Amino acid sequence: MRGVIMRAPGDVRVEDRENPTILEPTDAIIRITASCICGSDLWGYRGAEPADHTPMGHEYVGVVTEVGADVTTVGVGDFVVGSFFASDNTCEICLSGYPSRCVHAQPMGAIGTQAEYARIPLADGTLVATPGQPDPELIPSLLAASDVLGTGWFAAVAAEAGPGKTVAVVGDGAVGLLGILAARELGAERIIAMSRHADRQALARAFGATDIVEERGDAGVAAIKELTGGLGAHSVIEAVGTQESMMQAIRATRPGGHVGYVGVSHGVSLDGLELFFSGIHLHGGPAPVRRFLPELIQLIWDRKIDPGLVFDLALPLEDAAEGYRAMDERRAIKVLLTP
Amino acid sequence: MRGVIMRAPGDVRVEDRENPTILEPTDAIIRITASCICGSDLWGYRGAEPADHTPMGHEYVGVVTEVGADVTTVGVGDFVVGSFFASDNTCEICLSGYPSRCVHAQPMGAIGTQAEYARIPLADGTLVATPGQPDPELIPSLLAASDVLGTGWFAAVAAEAGPGKTVAVVGDGAVGLLGILAARELGAERIIAMSRHADRQALARAFGATDIVEERGDAGVAAIKELTGGLGAHSVIEAVGTQESMMQAIRATRPGGHVGYVGVSHGVSLDGLELFFSGIHLHGGPAPVRRFLPELIQLIWDRKIDPGLVFDLALPLEDAAEGYRAMDERRAIKVLLTP
Repeated sequence: MRGVIMRAPGDVRVEDRENPTILEPTDAIIRITASCICGSDLWGYRGAEPADHTPMGHEYVGVVTEVGADVTTVGVGDFVVGSFFASDNTCEICLSGYPSRCVHAQPMGAIGTQAEYARIPLADGTLVATPGQPDPELIPSLLAASDVLGTGWFAAVAAEAGPGKTVAVVGDGAVGLLGILAARELGAERIIAMSRHADRQALARAFGATDIVEERGDAGVAAIKELTGGLGAHSVIEAVGTQESMMQAIRATRPGGHVGYVGVSHGVSLDGLELFFSGIHLHGGPAPVRRFLPELIQLIWDRKIDPGLVFDLALPLEDAAEGYRAMDERRAIKVLLTP
Repeated sequence: MRGVIMRAPGDVRVEDRENPTILEPTDAIIRITASCICGSDLWGYRGAEPADHTPMGHEYVGVVTEVGADVTTVGVGDFVVGSFFASDNTCEICLSGYPSRCVHAQPMGAIGTQAEYARIPLADGTLVATPGQPDPELIPSLLAASDVLGTGWFAAVAAEAGPGKTVAVVGDGAVGLLGILAARELGAERIIAMSRHADRQALARAFGATDIVEERGDAGVAAIKELTGGLGAHSVIEAVGTQESMMQAIRATRPGGHVGYVGVSHGVSLDGLELFFSGIHLHGGPAPVRRFLPELIQLIWDRKIDPGLVFDLALPLEDAAEGYRAMDERRAIKVLLTP
């Protein structure tokens, strides 16, 4: 089969890879209908993480082509969505709502789903079948559920977005934009998108943002305070992962408020005393996407949400390198790849 | 009047101070029945914070002797308990449960309650009158409510201690010990005290600890994991404020679990990536003691809890210097001072 390999930072190729096979009786094999490039893939692309002939991709939707002997909840022909972590969905951590930290968790990034096929470990726990074969126009939204929507949703839940709340969103990438959509669905009263790009501002408004703040850093914090009677937002979504973005999120939150942070931390160090006196709640990490999948799939199936709008560029898998370039140069918010 | 002054680190005196007077119509003056020395007072005593002829003390119970023209909820002769932050109890932050971050908050430490009298700003919001004049044996427990009980209680609430939960407590000072009491009152199933001192272990067990772990640092974390099926505690109370204690707390918590941290941070720096992948909830800061005071006073009044047991040394105010020495040398858990 064909699959994306990052030979080195900045060097993305589509190469021949071995077709996956069932290794464990709990595995399934899926033919990938669509995959995509994640903002987190850019860390390696830009040299901020190692990349050495690394198979790429951890987001996927597809059709089951083979199941191991122990798989019971999905069958051949099912259209499925899964999270970027395989999880058993039965351990104590899964049952408490944190499947991405399942005691048997396996990162799908190590498998690489920017490819024609993928082996899905712990298929019963990991995969959720859609109610039927989806209409083609639903594919992007279902694919979004696999990571960016689920991650934005988790960020909004972790930030306790809800009725009566003012929510600020740091980061205007796909996750931040879908955090806005999630905050709206969760009933937030006011949603402030922090963005300085006209196209992203427009999508932010389409997803439910009521206000836009273009300033960043201290000026951004001051603008959020200005909009919230000097107190700061009740809920802040952090969807970047840098020192500046984390401090912007923490400082924009009122005492007792909640920061939901989902940007993978790069070089972030939090001063204990500042955090102490901030009085905020801090929660985040790898989003427990599997927790939300049934609900998110249903919302998409019922056409109540359209998170697939974050894909502003769709390319054949063979053109993956151009997809990486487009995201790196911020010409595209998020790139869908079709094998 | 007489009051404690820290002339310099390690140099504690009891000196003549001006009697306080009403400065604002919202002030009250109280005659202090009892005050005490806080673990946080030791930071200055040990030179980790500045001390230069500083009035000391922020915990207090006493009898109102005078009220400003605008004070309506307490009157002369009332026995009152207040928090270590004066707060209006009417602003949006107070009403959301965070009175120590009231928009008009004033630190009682700047007033200094290790003294015969104290001016209490924002008396209506700050002070809670007891149902009547307390029996003398209730004084230590009511005094504890002013800070250490309220702070331990907040830590347990922030850590989401409750039915079915395993709670670990880092720190065996008065706050940590009262965190144990709070976790028990909140219904925790199992409470693991981390302590290597026999007297504190005994008090921990009296307050509800079901297990003792003597190890610290990585070994302490391993012991907590061992006791929790390899997962870590659901809830961890951090009541020290050092780098080691914070990391011990974070690492002893299972993914999705909660750390409630109330030790004032000194030299703490949290690595963003480790925190991210921990998947924990982190909440803490200056405890919103005023939120809990009515409930805590009632529990004490009804003799359902006896937090005053943390006072293992009672001294006349004039002997404050010996009280500081005893706490610094860990000969005493907490010292009560009687003017």
